[in-house]
Amino acid sequence: MNDPSPLIPGLDTACAERVGRYLDTLTKPPGSLGRLESLAVTLAAITGEDFPSVTPPGVVVFAADHGVAEEGVSAFPQAVTAQMVANFVTGGAAINVFARRIDARLEVVDVGVASDVSGPGIVHDKVRPGTRNMARENAMTQHEARAAIAVGRRAAERAAKAGCRCLIVGEMGIANTTASTAMLAALTGVPVAELVGPGTGVAGDALARKQAVIEAALVARAADPDDPMDVLARLGGLEIAAMVGAYLGAAASRLPILVDGFIATVAALTACRLEPSLRPYLIFGHRSHEPGHDRALAALDAAPLLDFSLRLGEGSGAALAFPLLEAATAMLSEMATFADAGVDNREAR
Amino acid sequence: MNDPSPLIPGLDTACAERVGRYLDTLTKPPGSLGRLESLAVTLAAITGEDFPSVTPPGVVVFAADHGVAEEGVSAFPQAVTAQMVANFVTGGAAINVFARRIDARLEVVDVGVASDVSGPGIVHDKVRPGTRNMARENAMTQHEARAAIAVGRRAAERAAKAGCRCLIVGEMGIANTTASTAMLAALTGVPVAELVGPGTGVAGDALARKQAVIEAALVARAADPDDPMDVLARLGGLEIAAMVGAYLGAAASRLPILVDGFIATVAALTACRLEPSLRPYLIFGHRSHEPGHDRALAALDAAPLLDFSLRLGEGSGAALAFPLLEAATAMLSEMATFADAGVDNREAR
Repeated sequence: MNDPSPLIPGLDTACAERVGRYLDTLTKPPGSLGRLESLAVTLAAITGEDFPSVTPPGVVVFAADHGVAEEGVSAFPQAVTAQMVANFVTGGAAINVFARRIDARLEVVDVGVASDVSGPGIVHDKVRPGTRNMARENAMTQHEARAAIAVGRRAAERAAKAGCRCLIVGEMGIANTTASTAMLAALTGVPVAELVGPGTGVAGDALARKQAVIEAALVARAADPDDPMDVLARLGGLEIAAMVGAYLGAAASRLPILVDGFIATVAALTACRLEPSLRPYLIFGHRSHEPGHDRALAALDAAPLLDFSLRLGEGSGAALAFPLLEAATAMLSEMATFADAGVDNREAR
Repeated sequence: MNDPSPLIPGLDTACAERVGRYLDTLTKPPGSLGRLESLAVTLAAITGEDFPSVTPPGVVVFAADHGVAEEGVSAFPQAVTAQMVANFVTGGAAINVFARRIDARLEVVDVGVASDVSGPGIVHDKVRPGTRNMARENAMTQHEARAAIAVGRRAAERAAKAGCRCLIVGEMGIANTTASTAMLAALTGVPVAELVGPGTGVAGDALARKQAVIEAALVARAADPDDPMDVLARLGGLEIAAMVGAYLGAAASRLPILVDGFIATVAALTACRLEPSLRPYLIFGHRSHEPGHDRALAALDAAPLLDFSLRLGEGSGAALAFPLLEAATAMLSEMATFADAGVDNREAR
């Protein structure tokens, strides 16, 4: 099932090894910058550059609605998806704030909001006005899911063409933790009870109802766990499919990808099942508060940079983590070597 | 033993409560920015400002030598302390790189380098040319330790006067994990074997020797565990004492303090034992690779922002974490409210 995937280049292991050796010549005890050093090596392997750059970053937020919202699975009404898109346009959402901090190119893509949204800067690439209600029918057709993946790929290509050196992919879609939890359960076989969480804030009876809706949908939709496109179409979301496409498109352009929270990680797992060569391009921004996130991260053998109990989405957690990537590249390009600085290294003792 | 401590104001709990309520009006599910929200409340409590600022930050690096270096406890020769001070002056060290990224005011203070150091930007405030060898005698007199604390206080006051809104305190001193480990063992009663670590990179026989040197010094110096000034003078370092003073001085000016790694945390523990009202001013930047750091953090009930296996010092880990504080303040000052943005909150459902 490699049809939706562009060609993803292999890593530049020779460059990674050169950078690893160079790090030990910098004025610090070898290995003493820990995780930052391994990040630098990862960025070198992805980009093939001895002194990689991740700036400017691109942030793409895909917005779409979910038919399953009518089952009462979210703490917020469906109208909030479109309202938040308007908030993105006027610059008042968390992702606007954090994207400005990192001088990111921010793009908001309507891949499937239920109502019409308008405003400067919105990319209109709507596949359909929201998914169907997965409690009653497949969320998307295969054709629609592929179209949404293509939307994501185009967005990644625009970011690459605009000069972005790293991609952050976010989402907005009321009820999309429901869709993501269903997908994760289908892809991993982990019981819904171990994955389901508050999303934007459901608890108590509402959380029990969310779990029941997901469990029933899993049975009724009977997606093939070995076919990620089938899981995506039957249980997923238009914005989730677009995230899959954006990851694949970014990796095809050798862009490092900084993955956001739960929904972004489920999209990443889906994309890696479609195309395993994507995995080394993914750097995980944070471990979120949503219980299923741990399982999704484990399925990808991922160790996130931050552990901040976030549960907002929009790409916000990845944008928060981005300065750590910048610091890793600055360490490489700006630190003096022992020889340059006239500092004794251990062997000089 | 409050003599070395300036008056530290109490927290502004009313401001913290206002900010906590305001956070729930911003366009995000309540609490969904997790740790970032609690950081914002902490900064409000410290500064007394509803929209606190942490920029520009100040970074002060205290450099000093340790007599105990002659026992062969470090992977690097003592001359490296002065060589690294020269590297700070020319801007090639990790802390230079990370301080530039966060637009920090960087000051390097010679509080006790064994040799003469010179160069633009070095603050000369040397108490003595290195501590005495604690394996054979007390590292400092009480008078010297107090003088070094005063050096730190002056540095914090300069940073506050220069307009800094947050303080990061770093150190450079070959053999200072040895001094810090001895202090931590004395202050907590935890066996040296559970605290000692590689520092800049000792292992095997050298690590065993480092442990033996510390254990012998603890017995020979017999510092009073209930008297932090006694522990500091007998087992500590001039730069560690200066860090204690800088923390106390910063808190007296209501500056949030972003604490770096192992040595910085041992200094923080010492300062909190001297003056418990310091504790709420401390935000911990990262959990380092040095094994004793966990125990020092636990003694302070501290949960660091990053877990990056760093072991460099210089303030580098705190500087890496600083953008997270900036993001917390930007969230407060830049995000739209539900009312402003016309987004339904949960009650509107």
